[in-house]
Amino acid sequence: MPIEAPQIAAIEAAARRLDGLAVYTPLLENSVLNEALGFRLLIKPECLQRTGSFKFRGAYNRISLISEDARAKGVVAFSSGNHAQGVAAAAQLFGMSATIIMPKDAPKPKIDNTRALGAEVVLYDRYSESREELGQHIRDETGATLVKPYDDPGVIAGQGTVGLEIAAQCRARDINPDIVAVPCGGGGLIAGVSTALHAKSPETRIIGVEPNAFDDTVRSLKSGVRETNDADARSICDALLTPAPGEITFEINRRLLSGCVSVSDAEAMKAMKTAMQSFKIAVEPGGAVALAALLEGRIDVRGGVAVAVCSGGNVAPEMLAQALSG
Amino acid sequence: MPIEAPQIAAIEAAARRLDGLAVYTPLLENSVLNEALGFRLLIKPECLQRTGSFKFRGAYNRISLISEDARAKGVVAFSSGNHAQGVAAAAQLFGMSATIIMPKDAPKPKIDNTRALGAEVVLYDRYSESREELGQHIRDETGATLVKPYDDPGVIAGQGTVGLEIAAQCRARDINPDIVAVPCGGGGLIAGVSTALHAKSPETRIIGVEPNAFDDTVRSLKSGVRETNDADARSICDALLTPAPGEITFEINRRLLSGCVSVSDAEAMKAMKTAMQSFKIAVEPGGAVALAALLEGRIDVRGGVAVAVCSGGNVAPEMLAQALSG
Repeated sequence: MPIEAPQIAAIEAAARRLDGLAVYTPLLENSVLNEALGFRLLIKPECLQRTGSFKFRGAYNRISLISEDARAKGVVAFSSGNHAQGVAAAAQLFGMSATIIMPKDAPKPKIDNTRALGAEVVLYDRYSESREELGQHIRDETGATLVKPYDDPGVIAGQGTVGLEIAAQCRARDINPDIVAVPCGGGGLIAGVSTALHAKSPETRIIGVEPNAFDDTVRSLKSGVRETNDADARSICDALLTPAPGEITFEINRRLLSGCVSVSDAEAMKAMKTAMQSFKIAVEPGGAVALAALLEGRIDVRGGVAVAVCSGGNVAPEMLAQALSG
Repeated sequence: MPIEAPQIAAIEAAARRLDGLAVYTPLLENSVLNEALGFRLLIKPECLQRTGSFKFRGAYNRISLISEDARAKGVVAFSSGNHAQGVAAAAQLFGMSATIIMPKDAPKPKIDNTRALGAEVVLYDRYSESREELGQHIRDETGATLVKPYDDPGVIAGQGTVGLEIAAQCRARDINPDIVAVPCGGGGLIAGVSTALHAKSPETRIIGVEPNAFDDTVRSLKSGVRETNDADARSICDALLTPAPGEITFEINRRLLSGCVSVSDAEAMKAMKTAMQSFKIAVEPGGAVALAALLEGRIDVRGGVAVAVCSGGNVAPEMLAQALSG
């Protein structure tokens, strides 16, 4: 089966579908922080996106591709929380039912909000149960369409609209971004972003950022094959706890990324504080890793311009308060 | 001397000057919160604005009006912090020197950031010294232009661009806002916003929101004359601690506001938590009062559409953490 990597036209089509429904998130900047860092840092705050993360973009685009006939049977998805909310909100807009399979240790606000968006939530144990089997069981029973969190061309195309917007916003301000750093879990966001920027800003280097304990893409880019994470690995970056790179996403990322680095949970927490103080945005741990890598000098910007995608902000108030106290 | 209220053309001219320099802040919405409230709530997050508050808009517009000859002599301003940063950043963009007179109990991040933006900061005692006398002294010595925080047509016109954007953003999404609620200190922001909306969305009712202990505009609208606040009054809403409505601003607000309400400090803190959880934005106490009034049902929206301007986010991390723990 050939890999169906979405092309730029699919991303532009997704942007047209999302127009007026997704938030066109601004690029934020803090001149005082720039001076301290020695390079220009722009933030793409996808925490401000509908449902609190970029995931709405991919979910909505994917669901829009479901045939009229299949819509009545609803959708099913598995997710640690952000994809869950994105799928629930998108399904609601299409008047479709949604069943979401979530790990029972997902942050409570993510579970609560998914339910409040009208979805039925089924909880499972992240470390002992197979969410794929659970998903298959539900599909067999209902005929619902599975909306995968990342390994799907329609999802990747939707996430790619983040890259399209970055390119357009930079062009409008005469900025040539040297680096775009993107949080990387299954790799759907960065696959879409890199596809968009490869077409619209080919000089820009795209760098993935992972939690130290979930550095599967760091290792996979080195070895050339999809490496897996240790089953015992833990991180507070709940949005990025995927077992391995996706098949389609890795095929794209292998070709288009200039590299991938990783950060510690403590560095992600520190970046959350900077995000609140310097940019006035609430970012979740997994959403803050790209910012963390840039703040910690883990990516060499050489006095140029870097964009950090802050991919989500669905975090419990206790953890946000903890980050502020750090 | 006639009152020089800015007209819509002055606000549109300000918008052209600010294009590409000010953040065109998005309108944010949370469908789950809407359902709980029973009306549609949109947020205009000016905490995401350059320097962390709307004040950059007015400061930049006012400074752009200074004659070439006077530019070399710099600017002087007095401010509790947000206007300070707005003036400092705008002066820096024009290559002008800036002296800022700040109360010594202003939040440390605001003082630090004003200095980091290249301004000279002069501290004074809010309760025993006259900042006006201090400002006059500096002007006599340097010939610097005073950039007032609110009672100036150029400043009001700049702040009015917030209203212009709200009208355009609502129009683009086919939304007719019934209410726009705006934090009110000296009244510059709401005077500009109401002027813009009076021209662009005349059906919309504009409501000011003040801290309970600084409800000078609430009382002034009732009596028809400018009432003052108790000299002993205190509030955590440091951005809104003005002694009385401005002369020009009150002349505008008297004509264009549909009302003004007030909230407690505790209600402002509660709104800060909602802002972080539901909209992923960090808002300071004074910036959260309009949101607080809407969340507390202090403004009757009758199932319609309300916009809350969240005017700033320059708050110490300790206070933000305290709001999250509430």
